[in-house]
Amino acid sequence: MSRQPRPAVPSIDIEELVARREPGFSLEAPFYTHPDVYDLDLDAIFRKHWLFCAAEAEIPDPGDYVTIEIGATSVIIVRDDDESVYALHNVCRHRGSRIIEDACGSVGNLVCPYHQWTYRTDGSLIHAEATQEGFNRSQFGLKRINVRTVAGLIFVCLSDDPPADFDEVASKIEPYLTPFQLGGLKVAHQTDLVEEGNWKLVMENNRECLHCDAGHPELTSAYFPFLQSDVTEVPPRQQQLYERYLKALDRLAITGAAAGIPQRTYRELDNRATGFRITHFPLDGDGASFGWDGKQICKKLIGDIVDPAFGDMSLHYQPNSWFHFCSDHAVVFRALPVAPDKTIVRTTWLVHPDAVEGVDYDIPTLTEVWEATNTEDRRFVELAQRGATDPAYVPGPYATIEDDVNDFVSWYIKRLANHFGGGRDHLGLVAQAAVGN
Amino acid sequence: MSRQPRPAVPSIDIEELVARREPGFSLEAPFYTHPDVYDLDLDAIFRKHWLFCAAEAEIPDPGDYVTIEIGATSVIIVRDDDESVYALHNVCRHRGSRIIEDACGSVGNLVCPYHQWTYRTDGSLIHAEATQEGFNRSQFGLKRINVRTVAGLIFVCLSDDPPADFDEVASKIEPYLTPFQLGGLKVAHQTDLVEEGNWKLVMENNRECLHCDAGHPELTSAYFPFLQSDVTEVPPRQQQLYERYLKALDRLAITGAAAGIPQRTYRELDNRATGFRITHFPLDGDGASFGWDGKQICKKLIGDIVDPAFGDMSLHYQPNSWFHFCSDHAVVFRALPVAPDKTIVRTTWLVHPDAVEGVDYDIPTLTEVWEATNTEDRRFVELAQRGATDPAYVPGPYATIEDDVNDFVSWYIKRLANHFGGGRDHLGLVAQAAVGN
Amino acid sequence: MSRQPRPAVPSIDIEELVARREPGFSLEAPFYTHPDVYDLDLDAIFRKHWLFCAAEAEIPDPGDYVTIEIGATSVIIVRDDDESVYALHNVCRHRGSRIIEDACGSVGNLVCPYHQWTYRTDGSLIHAEATQEGFNRSQFGLKRINVRTVAGLIFVCLSDDPPADFDEVASKIEPYLTPFQLGGLKVAHQTDLVEEGNWKLVMENNRECLHCDAGHPELTSAYFPFLQSDVTEVPPRQQQLYERYLKALDRLAITGAAAGIPQRTYRELDNRATGFRITHFPLDGDGASFGWDGKQICKKLIGDIVDPAFGDMSLHYQPNSWFHFCSDHAVVFRALPVAPDKTIVRTTWLVHPDAVEGVDYDIPTLTEVWEATNTEDRRFVELAQRGATDPAYVPGPYATIEDDVNDFVSWYIKRLANHFGGGRDHLGLVAQAAVGN
Repeated sequence: MSRQPRPAVPSIDIEELVARREPGFSLEAPFYTHPDVYDLDLDAIFRKHWLFCAAEAEIPDPGDYVTIEIGATSVIIVRDDDESVYALHNVCRHRGSRIIEDACGSVGNLVCPYHQWTYRTDGSLIHAEATQEGFNRSQFGLKRINVRTVAGLIFVCLSDDPPADFDEVASKIEPYLTPFQLGGLKVAHQTDLVEEGNWKLVMENNRECLHCDAGHPELTSAYFPFLQSDVTEVPPRQQQLYERYLKALDRLAITGAAAGIPQRTYRELDNRATGFRITHFPLDGDGASFGWDGKQICKKLIGDIVDPAFGDMSLHYQPNSWFHFCSDHAVVFRALPVAPDKTIVRTTWLVHPDAVEGVDYDIPTLTEVWEATNTEDRRFVELAQRGATDPAYVPGPYATIEDDVNDFVSWYIKRLANHFGGGRDHLGLVAQAAVGN
Repeated sequence: MSRQPRPAVPSIDIEELVARREPGFSLEAPFYTHPDVYDLDLDAIFRKHWLFCAAEAEIPDPGDYVTIEIGATSVIIVRDDDESVYALHNVCRHRGSRIIEDACGSVGNLVCPYHQWTYRTDGSLIHAEATQEGFNRSQFGLKRINVRTVAGLIFVCLSDDPPADFDEVASKIEPYLTPFQLGGLKVAHQTDLVEEGNWKLVMENNRECLHCDAGHPELTSAYFPFLQSDVTEVPPRQQQLYERYLKALDRLAITGAAAGIPQRTYRELDNRATGFRITHFPLDGDGASFGWDGKQICKKLIGDIVDPAFGDMSLHYQPNSWFHFCSDHAVVFRALPVAPDKTIVRTTWLVHPDAVEGVDYDIPTLTEVWEATNTEDRRFVELAQRGATDPAYVPGPYATIEDDVNDFVSWYIKRLANHFGGGRDHLGLVAQAAVGN
Repeated sequence: MSRQPRPAVPSIDIEELVARREPGFSLEAPFYTHPDVYDLDLDAIFRKHWLFCAAEAEIPDPGDYVTIEIGATSVIIVRDDDESVYALHNVCRHRGSRIIEDACGSVGNLVCPYHQWTYRTDGSLIHAEATQEGFNRSQFGLKRINVRTVAGLIFVCLSDDPPADFDEVASKIEPYLTPFQLGGLKVAHQTDLVEEGNWKLVMENNRECLHCDAGHPELTSAYFPFLQSDVTEVPPRQQQLYERYLKALDRLAITGAAAGIPQRTYRELDNRATGFRITHFPLDGDGASFGWDGKQICKKLIGDIVDPAFGDMSLHYQPNSWFHFCSDHAVVFRALPVAPDKTIVRTTWLVHPDAVEGVDYDIPTLTEVWEATNTEDRRFVELAQRGATDPAYVPGPYATIEDDVNDFVSWYIKRLANHFGGGRDHLGLVAQAAVGN
């Protein structure tokens, strides 16, 4: 019945830890374990940056909503009658009750279950019972949150002063995404996976494929083994495979061009507030999916794509998401921190709006590679978390092909430095840094 | 295997928060969420005030006991051989073992299970093995706690300097309770409900019925809809109902008078240390119970009551309880804090000592309204707790008919102010404040 | 989804608490409950002293390992190809992943599951992929931990400056243990019991048998009731039992001498860093085991023992273990702290290497007394923990026959004083204190 005693933690100087971070090495332990860093991460990263939250396809109709939890902050993302998307704080202005309990659903108005204060989907209060004299409804609407949609992806920023580079990033990403007509796709499947590890370990794990050969047998059968290495010399035994790789590269360029999708790789991971990378990767076999044979897994191609052999268009977005776009489906990943040692990863599979389950696709085939990969990654994240919690842990050196991990970590350290410096150099960071290829 | 890292919480200035509380509005978030406030509540409220703990009917015979947990403090409430009630700390004076593990039971002596130190039910040590030379048994009795019984209700106060106004409150309440002969009733049923919310949200929820219409369909069928409003103008469609209400009022006054029960309402919620309210409410239909038809639910009336149409005599007691007395049963509620965000609510149904289950009453009928209401209230408390934990929460304005909530909150704030001021103005508060009607 | 608020705990002055400890009384509450004391215990006791960790019999062959968790520190204890035993930190030097997840097993090399960094069983790194230029493998071996084996028992010390008296203690204990040939025994059974109590309450409970009469009916049937008392006057009703006790004493001395085992009792519990006690106790009935009739429970005697009536050779070892050696089996106990109020106790039963389950012994008979006793002790520890958490707890006086508890507590307090004093007087403590008989 009594409360558990508080586990004491030594206090730390985070600014000092930020200042002394050694490039090329993993972070010091407190970044992965210390509750003060976790709280700082919520403030300096998750309450200050544009977070990917949901696909518009999750709320296709007026009144459709999803709720998301960013730390202790609950956000209602809801489509209004005029089709626009609002992000609202999920806290009644009467006595503070949660208004929406469910993760998703559909409403006419937003009615608080406690005393029935009633709000429109734009947040304005339209009914409150037995109010005191002088009560002014207009002062008690649900608080609004900054929200942006980019080619069918919904981003929110909890700060009143969002990073200024988002427009620029959106304008760079949009041409790649628009041909997929994401807003009109259908959610075929969605899963939530709780991983017992710090959110940065989840992101770091996503940012390298050094662990793929041994760790993801389902996934590596589709990718070519030349993706992360400088191919200066191909061993004779791989010569045939390499030629197949080059052909696949050529074909996806043609396929992409046919759909009007740019081919250029952007890699702006650590030189701006809204770090991102967008790249095309060929896939082996039929080049359409992550299965061992690369075969199409939904019969209907999406958006403007006409040739299944489009490979994998990969978008990495900081701080909290990654995406894979194929010719016949897209897979969307979103990580949100729950505790210093706990992160929730949501995966959403999108297909053509007219695709019919059991006819055009089936869920096991559609999801098997990433379901397996997610489960394997969870184990790696949890092993890394447990190691980082051990007093014997010391930062170790990244491999040559872990450069995106290093860039993610460098971005993170710069964002903290920016936060400590007052958060006024969003654009300065971009100007000073070398911009990616 | 390793301990979880400590969730950091910002430090707060509680005295400042107390000083700036805005009347008419719910409390600021830390009062509902912050562990330092929780600890202060244990010290300033639960260790300083008279708490309702149990009905005497729970320990009818010598040796009968119940244990209760007030924060980390475990209390044995036990009936001695001479019928008096003792409250003892449940900690052996040898090596500190818990003596009683069960929530209730019956003993001859209190024997520590570890090394068999043996105490009488008045706490005195009567046996200890292999003690050192010079050991003086009289110095090692179980520590006693202040205990008072009022017309069959047991109150304890952990402080050595209990609030001085308890005698006065007891003398005001006793005439209402004595006719029920509570000490001789029978416990028909008892439930414990854990609610994931701060204890004050549990109390606030109990102190208003604005949420009843939509939230408690089982309960509102029995109450008249005129209870919390100033009835200056009754709409024509309610005229008939209103006349029934007035008749019910008249009848319960007659019924009460026949049993020698005062009719006056006391409302001294925020003007004294031992805040309370006692009121009569008529019930619709037969006026005997909370069921939709108001019918008697136990065949035997209790105490001196002779007419079932007694309605609901309601006692609100601060900090931690509320009671409903009907002609044929009483329902007793007790809230105790378990954590900043967890409270345990015990509900006890009392009936005539000779009432036989299955003959005079059955448990489902006896308990259904309050079981349903408790479960619904738990949801509201938990929604409010989750909202108060959200950084977006701000105090909101109470409705006109949430005045008892406001009074509870004002009482609480005054008790904290009193605690910070040294706790010497128990009586002063009463003298300064306007006494209720 | 949000983190639980931190339970606040008042800060304490541990040095002051250490200084004012009253001999003959149990410790003040914070020693059993406060997270800061827990952290100090990990630093000053568990990271500074030689801990008993495992029997060599648990890792008989090259590549066999066990992992143990000392606070957040995970240790791999592994037998190398050359038969020597290594203790290694279970943290990969690349990105910090746990290397071994299982509690025991067998490996060729130690391969990190994340990116396959590969280490020999002596900790040296032999493979790492795609390393940066200039990477020096020799600098990235698994960190080694001090490890010692004493007559088949494995001890580790996490400190680089282990207590200097271990050699002396080892030389005193070894003659008692060597005849049992422990290293060559077979693990017949092993259990882990999580007890919801501070590790010191687990140890204190082990250091006295005042609770045995009422608390351990299975165990006390085998022991004579004269063990912990000064037998100056035997009551007539016990005269016959006492004569049996004296005969059993004589026989075990002869049995021990035949096996070359010293008879002298060492009792050096509170006068040195590596506190210990080793004693012979006769057992009733056949004198071979803890069963009610003292009968042999494995058909094969172990080591050099030739007569089953060897009684119980008991080794108490500080901070964290105790052992019982009989003629036909040994039982090994190891306690490790998990949280301020949680301890894990591992019990291991060892028998002759050629003993066959179902033929020479069966698990239920072999384990029943200590399984029952462990379970009973867990309850006592948990009752004591709950009492110590109660604000009403005050230290109580030890009984005359709780002197080993007092010595354990005194040892503990001296170790903390030593820690606060800089940890330089390991040998000084021994020199100053009176050495046991």
